[in-house]
Amino acid sequence: MSAGEIFLWELMGTATLTLLGCGVVANVTLRNTLGHNGGWLLVTFGWGFAVFAGASIAAPSGAHINPAVTFGLAVHGQVTWSQVPIYLLGELTGATLGAVLCWAAYKLQFDTHDDPANTRGIFCTAPTVRHAPWNLVTEIIGTFILVLWIILSPGAERGPQGIPEFGNAALGYAAVAFVVIVIGTSLGGPTGYAINPARDLGPRIAYAVLPIKGKGSADWAYSWVPILGPVLGGVLAGALALILPVA
Amino acid sequence: MSAGEIFLWELMGTATLTLLGCGVVANVTLRNTLGHNGGWLLVTFGWGFAVFAGASIAAPSGAHINPAVTFGLAVHGQVTWSQVPIYLLGELTGATLGAVLCWAAYKLQFDTHDDPANTRGIFCTAPTVRHAPWNLVTEIIGTFILVLWIILSPGAERGPQGIPEFGNAALGYAAVAFVVIVIGTSLGGPTGYAINPARDLGPRIAYAVLPIKGKGSADWAYSWVPILGPVLGGVLAGALALILPVA
Amino acid sequence: MSAGEIFLWELMGTATLTLLGCGVVANVTLRNTLGHNGGWLLVTFGWGFAVFAGASIAAPSGAHINPAVTFGLAVHGQVTWSQVPIYLLGELTGATLGAVLCWAAYKLQFDTHDDPANTRGIFCTAPTVRHAPWNLVTEIIGTFILVLWIILSPGAERGPQGIPEFGNAALGYAAVAFVVIVIGTSLGGPTGYAINPARDLGPRIAYAVLPIKGKGSADWAYSWVPILGPVLGGVLAGALALILPVA
Amino acid sequence: MSAGEIFLWELMGTATLTLLGCGVVANVTLRNTLGHNGGWLLVTFGWGFAVFAGASIAAPSGAHINPAVTFGLAVHGQVTWSQVPIYLLGELTGATLGAVLCWAAYKLQFDTHDDPANTRGIFCTAPTVRHAPWNLVTEIIGTFILVLWIILSPGAERGPQGIPEFGNAALGYAAVAFVVIVIGTSLGGPTGYAINPARDLGPRIAYAVLPIKGKGSADWAYSWVPILGPVLGGVLAGALALILPVA
Repeated sequence: MSAGEIFLWELMGTATLTLLGCGVVANVTLRNTLGHNGGWLLVTFGWGFAVFAGASIAAPSGAHINPAVTFGLAVHGQVTWSQVPIYLLGELTGATLGAVLCWAAYKLQFDTHDDPANTRGIFCTAPTVRHAPWNLVTEIIGTFILVLWIILSPGAERGPQGIPEFGNAALGYAAVAFVVIVIGTSLGGPTGYAINPARDLGPRIAYAVLPIKGKGSADWAYSWVPILGPVLGGVLAGALALILPVA
Repeated sequence: MSAGEIFLWELMGTATLTLLGCGVVANVTLRNTLGHNGGWLLVTFGWGFAVFAGASIAAPSGAHINPAVTFGLAVHGQVTWSQVPIYLLGELTGATLGAVLCWAAYKLQFDTHDDPANTRGIFCTAPTVRHAPWNLVTEIIGTFILVLWIILSPGAERGPQGIPEFGNAALGYAAVAFVVIVIGTSLGGPTGYAINPARDLGPRIAYAVLPIKGKGSADWAYSWVPILGPVLGGVLAGALALILPVA
Repeated sequence: MSAGEIFLWELMGTATLTLLGCGVVANVTLRNTLGHNGGWLLVTFGWGFAVFAGASIAAPSGAHINPAVTFGLAVHGQVTWSQVPIYLLGELTGATLGAVLCWAAYKLQFDTHDDPANTRGIFCTAPTVRHAPWNLVTEIIGTFILVLWIILSPGAERGPQGIPEFGNAALGYAAVAFVVIVIGTSLGGPTGYAINPARDLGPRIAYAVLPIKGKGSADWAYSWVPILGPVLGGVLAGALALILPVA
Repeated sequence: MSAGEIFLWELMGTATLTLLGCGVVANVTLRNTLGHNGGWLLVTFGWGFAVFAGASIAAPSGAHINPAVTFGLAVHGQVTWSQVPIYLLGELTGATLGAVLCWAAYKLQFDTHDDPANTRGIFCTAPTVRHAPWNLVTEIIGTFILVLWIILSPGAERGPQGIPEFGNAALGYAAVAFVVIVIGTSLGGPTGYAINPARDLGPRIAYAVLPIKGKGSADWAYSWVPILGPVLGGVLAGALALILPVA
């Protein structure tokens, strides 16, 4: 597959991911929506099925839609290191674009929200208790489980460089969605489970740049945690899988 | 497949869709029900699995049950333009019939509801903040994602004119349901995600015509938005898919 | 398959169904439980996955676990009428037994409930607005959709006398569960969606007979509605399927 | 498969199970989380998909991740008794390790919780009404259904010693997850559905040992119930399956 195609499909898949993922948080957060105060299960199903939709669309390039997955698969040897920058660029560009589309879909709700300075959480993650080392631990553990599951999935029939399809894309991407849902229900409580550097950085850039009425800070001081943590978690999972007796 | 069969199966599938879809909103909205105030996740799962049931029943005709899907597939070349009117007629007739059945199932609850002038939302969509251009944007984005996913789905083994089955109808229609669920959780907040002109217009006609006790206006002033938006979204998705490197 | 085996598997599957189905209502209703006031989505997922578990266990006999399914398939010609009484006996016996097991699982919660006269709803259905003809309509519509879906399911590879498996029991029974979930979310509001005479009558007998502390009436006056309605719905679906162009 | 590999995969799968399972309870219980008060459906989906993730990772060893499953399969003859201690050791070690990781992921939330003496429920189960014989009955029934389903699953293509995969691990483990979800929704109300001795004992040990700020008692007086009940339930299911006409 050409670099251009990798870039294109990762861009489209990751844009779908953040459009739908940021969308569910917008729905729950903003005042004038039908899903206001919809609860954490709604958020986790929204992000989980956002992965389902985004991975389906990015299937031609292996459906990474997440730099932590790209790094983990590179460490494990399923992706060549020369391809990594193309994946990352597509993922970050797409993640930013998806967040812009989410803002467009919720434009009227942003304009009429009663606490506009507090809308950053629709775009990017923040810890409930701020402490970089332990916040990193939480992000590392969550991403480690995701990438380890992707690499070890039994019976996975995959292309040379992607997430498992279990012989059927609908089934494989539903399986990934279930894992993302459970990471959200179970490990998302402390930091909002970025578990994907592009999913956090792209929308953060969008939040900083977009003309959102009355918006607050983009909190760049925290932004490195949901980048470094997921990358470390993915690399650790790829490295562990190399030394396990089967993979 | 004969025009009569297309009409029949699309009618039955779309009737199933709106019976169950309008049903979940009736359950959440009306006072004397077991699901009163059940929340947005209940609504999105109800509509999502309503698509699952309706698509299963409309499988012989390709399971469109949505004019936006029909238009998108026609632009993409999977449906001939001469078939389009048959699909649309079946979809609209079915959507109206399903809404009538929903009213019958909830007849006693409509009769005893404490705010009967405010029951239009059970049948058709309305924006939380009214502004036609941005409401259109929201409907276009949501439908675009749905139809793009349907056309691009990887590994989809489909008939010449339908939504993907992934080699197995149960799996394919579950996948479509997951995508409809996430569009609801994530993009349904501003306008109630019609994303299907028949789903909105058919029940709106039913609301206007049925002898619902104390009913209010059918809000025809807004009715063109959930028709035009989804059609534009579907056409855009079909057109984009034509120029993508694979489809 | 011998009559004894049909009886055995239908008994075990239907007992699993009502153990788990009545169980979720006990969990939501009774005071000293972890799921108290868990909401309608919890109830519908509980009953839906109860069908998944019960149908899996009753797979050898075709996984009816519901007299309305048995009647519908008999009208459609997939089950011989001489087998029907064996199915019904297994289903009713199992449904009663499952309710007894549910009571045992929640024995301490029944003993310490603060409104013991009001526990019938754990076992059997009741309408929110009582009016036999319209209550019948609701039950007929819900069961009609269920049985029609079962008979028409596309690509279903089934034995000569059962519900569809889509070539894979896990997938087929998950599909049935999704349909039962959506009937619950969408048509369960008025009458509690019996859609299965055994599921209602068996636990009602158990409620009448069990030594439940402080229990109230079994409401036999209503008990014929959730029997007649589902049987009519199933028969109508079987008859309609006979005259459709494909089945 | 060597004893070492059985130990390794069961350890990793069961660690994944309790990391994610205890994680969802931490998310719902602790104050400074995004899922605080998320409700019982969130808990049951969290534990259910935790089984999905853990079983996927433990697939090479048959994905028991539960001594009750190991005992049930041993009684039924699918596992040799000499292997049983290896399975148990892997399961218990993994369950303890997963709970430690959960504590690390929620370290800041444990430190800032407003009722730290009351955090045992994140790790292990407790009855809402304490009465050992009836608590045992509840745990026996729930585990019996789980293990019976695992042994009887129709069409299951499994290795000689594991839970069913239905010809596809993603599908098989999703099916197991649905059964675990419904046991939670429906039979989890009285005792918190241990249905797995390792899942309860391992995290209880972790709670007793970890330096959790302000922690309370590990409640060893109850700890035998969620061990004995699940073992009895699994053994009963294995024994019943031996005398059923098919298995």
